[in-house]
Amino acid sequence: MRYGAMYGPDVTFLGVERCALAEPASFAGADVVIVGAPYDGGTSHRPGTRFGPMAIRTTDYLGHNGSRPSLALRVDALKDLRVLDAGDVEMYAGDEMESHAAIEEAVHTITASGAIPVVLGGDHSIALPDARGVARHYGFGRVSMIHFDAHADTGDIEFGHLYGHGQPMRRLLECGAIRGDRFLQLGLRGYWPEPDTLDWMAEQRMRSYEMTEIVTRGFDECLAEASAIAMDDCDGVYLSVDVDVCDPGHAPGTGTPEPGGISARQLLDAVRGICYRLPVVGVEIVEVSPPYDHAEITAALGNRVVLEALSGIARRRKDAESGHTWDPAQPLLDGR
Amino acid sequence: MRYGAMYGPDVTFLGVERCALAEPASFAGADVVIVGAPYDGGTSHRPGTRFGPMAIRTTDYLGHNGSRPSLALRVDALKDLRVLDAGDVEMYAGDEMESHAAIEEAVHTITASGAIPVVLGGDHSIALPDARGVARHYGFGRVSMIHFDAHADTGDIEFGHLYGHGQPMRRLLECGAIRGDRFLQLGLRGYWPEPDTLDWMAEQRMRSYEMTEIVTRGFDECLAEASAIAMDDCDGVYLSVDVDVCDPGHAPGTGTPEPGGISARQLLDAVRGICYRLPVVGVEIVEVSPPYDHAEITAALGNRVVLEALSGIARRRKDAESGHTWDPAQPLLDGR
Amino acid sequence: MRYGAMYGPDVTFLGVERCALAEPASFAGADVVIVGAPYDGGTSHRPGTRFGPMAIRTTDYLGHNGSRPSLALRVDALKDLRVLDAGDVEMYAGDEMESHAAIEEAVHTITASGAIPVVLGGDHSIALPDARGVARHYGFGRVSMIHFDAHADTGDIEFGHLYGHGQPMRRLLECGAIRGDRFLQLGLRGYWPEPDTLDWMAEQRMRSYEMTEIVTRGFDECLAEASAIAMDDCDGVYLSVDVDVCDPGHAPGTGTPEPGGISARQLLDAVRGICYRLPVVGVEIVEVSPPYDHAEITAALGNRVVLEALSGIARRRKDAESGHTWDPAQPLLDGR
Amino acid sequence: MRYGAMYGPDVTFLGVERCALAEPASFAGADVVIVGAPYDGGTSHRPGTRFGPMAIRTTDYLGHNGSRPSLALRVDALKDLRVLDAGDVEMYAGDEMESHAAIEEAVHTITASGAIPVVLGGDHSIALPDARGVARHYGFGRVSMIHFDAHADTGDIEFGHLYGHGQPMRRLLECGAIRGDRFLQLGLRGYWPEPDTLDWMAEQRMRSYEMTEIVTRGFDECLAEASAIAMDDCDGVYLSVDVDVCDPGHAPGTGTPEPGGISARQLLDAVRGICYRLPVVGVEIVEVSPPYDHAEITAALGNRVVLEALSGIARRRKDAESGHTWDPAQPLLDGR
Amino acid sequence: MRYGAMYGPDVTFLGVERCALAEPASFAGADVVIVGAPYDGGTSHRPGTRFGPMAIRTTDYLGHNGSRPSLALRVDALKDLRVLDAGDVEMYAGDEMESHAAIEEAVHTITASGAIPVVLGGDHSIALPDARGVARHYGFGRVSMIHFDAHADTGDIEFGHLYGHGQPMRRLLECGAIRGDRFLQLGLRGYWPEPDTLDWMAEQRMRSYEMTEIVTRGFDECLAEASAIAMDDCDGVYLSVDVDVCDPGHAPGTGTPEPGGISARQLLDAVRGICYRLPVVGVEIVEVSPPYDHAEITAALGNRVVLEALSGIARRRKDAESGHTWDPAQPLLDGR
Amino acid sequence: MRYGAMYGPDVTFLGVERCALAEPASFAGADVVIVGAPYDGGTSHRPGTRFGPMAIRTTDYLGHNGSRPSLALRVDALKDLRVLDAGDVEMYAGDEMESHAAIEEAVHTITASGAIPVVLGGDHSIALPDARGVARHYGFGRVSMIHFDAHADTGDIEFGHLYGHGQPMRRLLECGAIRGDRFLQLGLRGYWPEPDTLDWMAEQRMRSYEMTEIVTRGFDECLAEASAIAMDDCDGVYLSVDVDVCDPGHAPGTGTPEPGGISARQLLDAVRGICYRLPVVGVEIVEVSPPYDHAEITAALGNRVVLEALSGIARRRKDAESGHTWDPAQPLLDGR
Repeated sequence: MRYGAMYGPDVTFLGVERCALAEPASFAGADVVIVGAPYDGGTSHRPGTRFGPMAIRTTDYLGHNGSRPSLALRVDALKDLRVLDAGDVEMYAGDEMESHAAIEEAVHTITASGAIPVVLGGDHSIALPDARGVARHYGFGRVSMIHFDAHADTGDIEFGHLYGHGQPMRRLLECGAIRGDRFLQLGLRGYWPEPDTLDWMAEQRMRSYEMTEIVTRGFDECLAEASAIAMDDCDGVYLSVDVDVCDPGHAPGTGTPEPGGISARQLLDAVRGICYRLPVVGVEIVEVSPPYDHAEITAALGNRVVLEALSGIARRRKDAESGHTWDPAQPLLDGR
Repeated sequence: MRYGAMYGPDVTFLGVERCALAEPASFAGADVVIVGAPYDGGTSHRPGTRFGPMAIRTTDYLGHNGSRPSLALRVDALKDLRVLDAGDVEMYAGDEMESHAAIEEAVHTITASGAIPVVLGGDHSIALPDARGVARHYGFGRVSMIHFDAHADTGDIEFGHLYGHGQPMRRLLECGAIRGDRFLQLGLRGYWPEPDTLDWMAEQRMRSYEMTEIVTRGFDECLAEASAIAMDDCDGVYLSVDVDVCDPGHAPGTGTPEPGGISARQLLDAVRGICYRLPVVGVEIVEVSPPYDHAEITAALGNRVVLEALSGIARRRKDAESGHTWDPAQPLLDGR
Repeated sequence: MRYGAMYGPDVTFLGVERCALAEPASFAGADVVIVGAPYDGGTSHRPGTRFGPMAIRTTDYLGHNGSRPSLALRVDALKDLRVLDAGDVEMYAGDEMESHAAIEEAVHTITASGAIPVVLGGDHSIALPDARGVARHYGFGRVSMIHFDAHADTGDIEFGHLYGHGQPMRRLLECGAIRGDRFLQLGLRGYWPEPDTLDWMAEQRMRSYEMTEIVTRGFDECLAEASAIAMDDCDGVYLSVDVDVCDPGHAPGTGTPEPGGISARQLLDAVRGICYRLPVVGVEIVEVSPPYDHAEITAALGNRVVLEALSGIARRRKDAESGHTWDPAQPLLDGR
Repeated sequence: MRYGAMYGPDVTFLGVERCALAEPASFAGADVVIVGAPYDGGTSHRPGTRFGPMAIRTTDYLGHNGSRPSLALRVDALKDLRVLDAGDVEMYAGDEMESHAAIEEAVHTITASGAIPVVLGGDHSIALPDARGVARHYGFGRVSMIHFDAHADTGDIEFGHLYGHGQPMRRLLECGAIRGDRFLQLGLRGYWPEPDTLDWMAEQRMRSYEMTEIVTRGFDECLAEASAIAMDDCDGVYLSVDVDVCDPGHAPGTGTPEPGGISARQLLDAVRGICYRLPVVGVEIVEVSPPYDHAEITAALGNRVVLEALSGIARRRKDAESGHTWDPAQPLLDGR
Repeated sequence: MRYGAMYGPDVTFLGVERCALAEPASFAGADVVIVGAPYDGGTSHRPGTRFGPMAIRTTDYLGHNGSRPSLALRVDALKDLRVLDAGDVEMYAGDEMESHAAIEEAVHTITASGAIPVVLGGDHSIALPDARGVARHYGFGRVSMIHFDAHADTGDIEFGHLYGHGQPMRRLLECGAIRGDRFLQLGLRGYWPEPDTLDWMAEQRMRSYEMTEIVTRGFDECLAEASAIAMDDCDGVYLSVDVDVCDPGHAPGTGTPEPGGISARQLLDAVRGICYRLPVVGVEIVEVSPPYDHAEITAALGNRVVLEALSGIARRRKDAESGHTWDPAQPLLDGR
Repeated sequence: MRYGAMYGPDVTFLGVERCALAEPASFAGADVVIVGAPYDGGTSHRPGTRFGPMAIRTTDYLGHNGSRPSLALRVDALKDLRVLDAGDVEMYAGDEMESHAAIEEAVHTITASGAIPVVLGGDHSIALPDARGVARHYGFGRVSMIHFDAHADTGDIEFGHLYGHGQPMRRLLECGAIRGDRFLQLGLRGYWPEPDTLDWMAEQRMRSYEMTEIVTRGFDECLAEASAIAMDDCDGVYLSVDVDVCDPGHAPGTGTPEPGGISARQLLDAVRGICYRLPVVGVEIVEVSPPYDHAEITAALGNRVVLEALSGIARRRKDAESGHTWDPAQPLLDGR
């Protein structure tokens, strides 16, 4: 029994095949299982991410045909991989605990089956259940985190609660699912969190790249350094992408936009590169909020983040078999 | 200690004086206490009502000076009455139970002080704690309900939960706070709830005016009939206004718009008339969702619903003292 | 082989079952077959109706579960009738002739199967193939037309072409599919068409109710008169609803908005009444243009026009069996 | 030398012929001269009416061909009358005195030439120079005022100034251009102005129809009464239409929207009726603010207000010659 | 006889002089003739480019006075060149073949007269008639193509048709108007077209710069390389600018936005540089879709693309005469 | 007596303490006094900046608690400095002279008290009174100007007036408040002003960095050069930030958007750097126009410009005491 969609019609990511988490046979042998987490009960400001999964799944001007051949990577991830869509997990906004438990269970089920979970948020509070669901399978501390965000999301208490969208990373460290010294953050900026939280982060030996460092040293260098840390004594990487890492000009449709972010091009290249170079074991794209979007540009970006991640994974597997290495400078039509 | 605003700056309704619910002296002797319920965790579809209190408080082109002389009623409710604004109650979207408990306590505190609570929603799930908070003071079953809405809000279970914005009216009856046969609904339409819920409503002896009956018999006649029922063996009336009772053309900024509603003019006249003619003991205006609004027209309507309610109350009190009766046909400048 | 959706994911009207026009067995025994006509190549001004079918199918805050019990009519049309959705017909905007031929064939196929076609436009140019497809089955001149619109759509040549969205009604009369003296138009207003076209319409003995007449005489009286004409020596009624018959305040999302129209409530009541009282053999709802919509209010109205039509048909059939007559003044909970 | 357009390209109202106020020969013999007053320096809240003239001139889906045959009135005002467009008057927002002087001069020039001025606002502060420009020709006190508005616009001082858009009507009375007892206002509502201003208005013997009276007594009756007063011992009527007299649902694109107004249909019928029945000597349509509009519905309404006024004038003149009387109940195609 | 504007008032590009293609004398001696191609019948997804010509012509906050002195290039292209605007070509969306034939004829007429055609789209399907119209004059194969776009537009069949906006470049090669090995594409990205189309492109020896190559090697280097190819054994360059080459953050108002594009600054510099350095014989700017724009930023970008192209051409001619070379590093006020 | 807010509720910048300019004691000892200049009477095109002060003060998703610890600079400017908010100056749009006089007086009062004025515009016409108010204190010619803008704002006469938003910089030089050779402009581009104005600027020995020079030489180099000039024989720097210096993709909500600007990241870094490295004595952020904004991204940028300026000032003072130097490459968590 498939739950389907929490809001709107039951559609899949660009037309890929359906599966049901309650029916293990339906996703046996899958490489990737997409699941929607339409939850915005953890949002501290502008809501609307409950419509993120629907928007990320469907915002594309091309046919919804389960095929997306990447020009850059020369793979068709939706076909070269077995990608299924499990629909949404029911996540009632007013019940955080139950909602988080449900998505954690879903992510763990997918991971345990051998597939990579790709979670479509939803607000960032789901990073806690998402990453914990993965870590329960690989072992606490065995999966590193690469986290793109304008915000550290390491707050302690907000509105009197522990599990909102500004706190999941703290909880992940506290419960041991992710090691502090394998927690990489890129794109932070602005005026939050406050210094004692930063002190706590430093104590955990987290590595957080604020935009000033990124601009000064260069994004590529920071990314390379972070990737190296992520792969030191870890078995896999969990990739958490908060769309607000991009500048609001590129991603207006989000809840807590912080001016001065990276460009959409930079994010897409980074996601692609990480999924191509590192053993990614889980992906989430969060904080796409359609009510605040314009001309669907943020939803389209969310859709492309998923596709770049999948294409990177597909090319990684292909190259692992063939022994080739991808050359980003190769002209599009060369070698055809 | 005043909590202030859950979102944005701490402002009051059109500049009226502040009070703090934790400090009884601050609202002693008040006629009306306004309180914000910035909660949208109970929404079944489009969220955003968390920004309703802020929008309803501030959307007005006139000065925020704590004065609003009504042309029609010839009272200045914000001055003729002692109207205070207690700010928001903290209502974390992800924790429905705690949020509801907090607003119920706030409403009860206000009512117990002798003031009329005016609650700025927030989604309609707050009708349960709001009306229960009032009924706890007046006695369960002693307060009737007049409820403007496109929806009956008498659902049983939604998304596996009992307390969302489609269910508060059922819960109110079940707990005995409001009697079924003193529960008046106006403006219902569309395709919800399903027949067995309607059967349950009939069993409770609710009186629900669907738009077809309203159009066929006339809105005024239905209103008069409903008012008469409301005052039969009850001590007061609780007025619950869901802005989606209006047609989406007049109130686009809401979560579950149902085409074919009444006009803004009709709603304002109805609210004014009820507050002038009946002993209203509590008011709520809910489901104003700024992210879906345009040119602030829905927020402005919410603001005016509050002002019409307050003006009706003020004129009622004035006429009670003077023995006059308001004549809606009187020309504006007559008698000056 | 089902074509599916021309744009976006392949979804059905509120979750009803799929059928494929190329497979007669798939819709054998259907009462109603919905089909999308995502065509805006005939638009003379603002385009965007190509996204009308998708928007009309999906714009609803309730679950997409193939059930919509009407409060007013006490039927669940999507269940009481066998309603199927055939998906879209491929209608390339740049090729009017081929597109029109395709939708005419589709409508004829549905009609010939014994089902009522409900066409989701698209711009109004499809009225020509739609109504002709129906008339080919019932006989030219045997089906009358009730046409809600701000515009007469009886132009002769526009942009050098004959088949745009301002001309279908002229072509329908010229080809004989519909008789001029059984052509009823309601809601016309403004400054088009020019006098010689009006003269031609008068010659054809069309009956067109301009808003001034409607306001002066009353909408109900005009509707009753039109209905009587429609049923005089005709075997069925084709109902064509251009959403711009409503005031732009109620239906901003359309291509050629003309201020001063009827309200959404009036349109819904009229559509319901016609489908309940008259033998409707085909329905189209056109000119919903999502790019110009706000908060989805026009799309929601289009969705409700379909539901009111289906509910009217369902209740008509039910009453035909039971001998009852629907009473619009009956309170919602009476008789339960 | 024609000034042209203050903002954007130099276009005319729906393509009518140009004239230049500096060249009397260019508008000799005109029946109507349209002039733009792109001024929003007098606005007390949301600005943007500077773009009103451009929007009112061009917002129409029909060809800009200088022809608009009215379905209802059976005249083509743009052809049956000699209607010219003088372009904009330069009105720098930061210099109220100079801007007002310039438009007053323009309106007087037009009136003195024998043509009826139709002024496209701009904010309502221009009512003072507009009506004074007309009154200078006909004689102070010889022209009555019919004023559609949500607001009385009789304030005394605002932001320390005398000539903003909330004050023109007071200034008009004070200077004697219009007699207080021939000043008719329709559509007032809300919470402004304050009682002492209302007292002043009563002293002036103004007649102001608030919405409550209008709803209670009926719009038609109020209109008829107002028209009778207007024609008592006056030589002409100046018609001032503030688009915010309509409900914000019908006219969101305005600066100070007040919920609960009349419908677009009611406004169009009223404007048409006044121009048909009374000797209108000047018209202004003000407060259309494109930045706050949606899908151009307010701009379209402004355009139609102008066309209804012109069509009413044209039909009035035609009937004066022929001795016929317009019958609003006549079917559209009758008599063709 | 000038056709004028297909939609809205007949205006010219920023106020330049009018000409009529049917009257050769009206554009004799022109350096540049602008023509509007308001066609969106070839769009595969979001329509609206029919309003592109109007938007590109008029979206500018400066006076529409036929003068635009470039700060950077120190020329006033609208004055230094003789730039005329021929208005729109009538292009009915529903008739692709006729519409394309009409614009091809217009472009050829302009080219044959010795002027450079600047075509304001419209969707990109017009690239086929545009470039063919130019090539008919210079000789098939004698003009190279520099094409900025997110998409290759080399599809074969879409929606069963050959001439949509995803296919013009294939058709141009097939008909021989442009040589494959002189076809330069910059900015491609995403997941389209599919591999066999890429194979076909490789066979044609096209040179396509995907964003990954551009980011890796640098935009300037890629541009220089492309320019060199373009000038190898060709007599002129046709410049086709699809505004979606920019990131959706910079150009939301377009039909098929693909995240990850170049910035507006990069596009303007590239267009300017090409028109300054190469012998451009035709320019088109396409896919500006106002209904999806926000705050007119995409329309403004389209306007500036035209101005940069014209300014580049003007400076090229000026330097050809004077022997100077433009120095982009020169301070603005140096040499004055 | 505090004036409060000209529009909307009386709030302060992110909750800092209030002061009143009429009461010197209320801001004695302040480091910074913020003041709103809600004036848009000087705008030459799209208005709306009157709502800039409100938007800049309140657009932030974090609590309005008077604290903003900068991640990058490791200061909490709102606490480390004594920052007060004096509310708005009343600036009636229709009276430029009086409005400018009022803000000049306010800025001078603040400066004379020893505090740094931070002015929230409003249109850019206020640069004249703002900078003159500062210069009156420090001495004419003793303060240099660093001016970020797409436009030089050195026009002479516009709409027949001298003091609009395109002219303040000329007036500042003419009156001697700022020396021409200490006037630094960054970000200019496009097609304005005309050559004779540029000649005048050259004569004044202004230094204007057009985007072409900035792109060619690099933004950092240009900034460093400009900073050096600014500090040559001057006592302080006035920083004027017109938000339209950013690309419209990053700042759509402004009146005269010019494509091709710098990114939000570049602006924030530049403002921070200038306030950290140079002795800034006054700051203004202008031309944020909320009616044209989307998802509040431009308002958020304006808010962050203020915070970066304040944080730069705070860190400058802190380092002056401690002797440290800020290292932008330092990792966020280093040294904690």
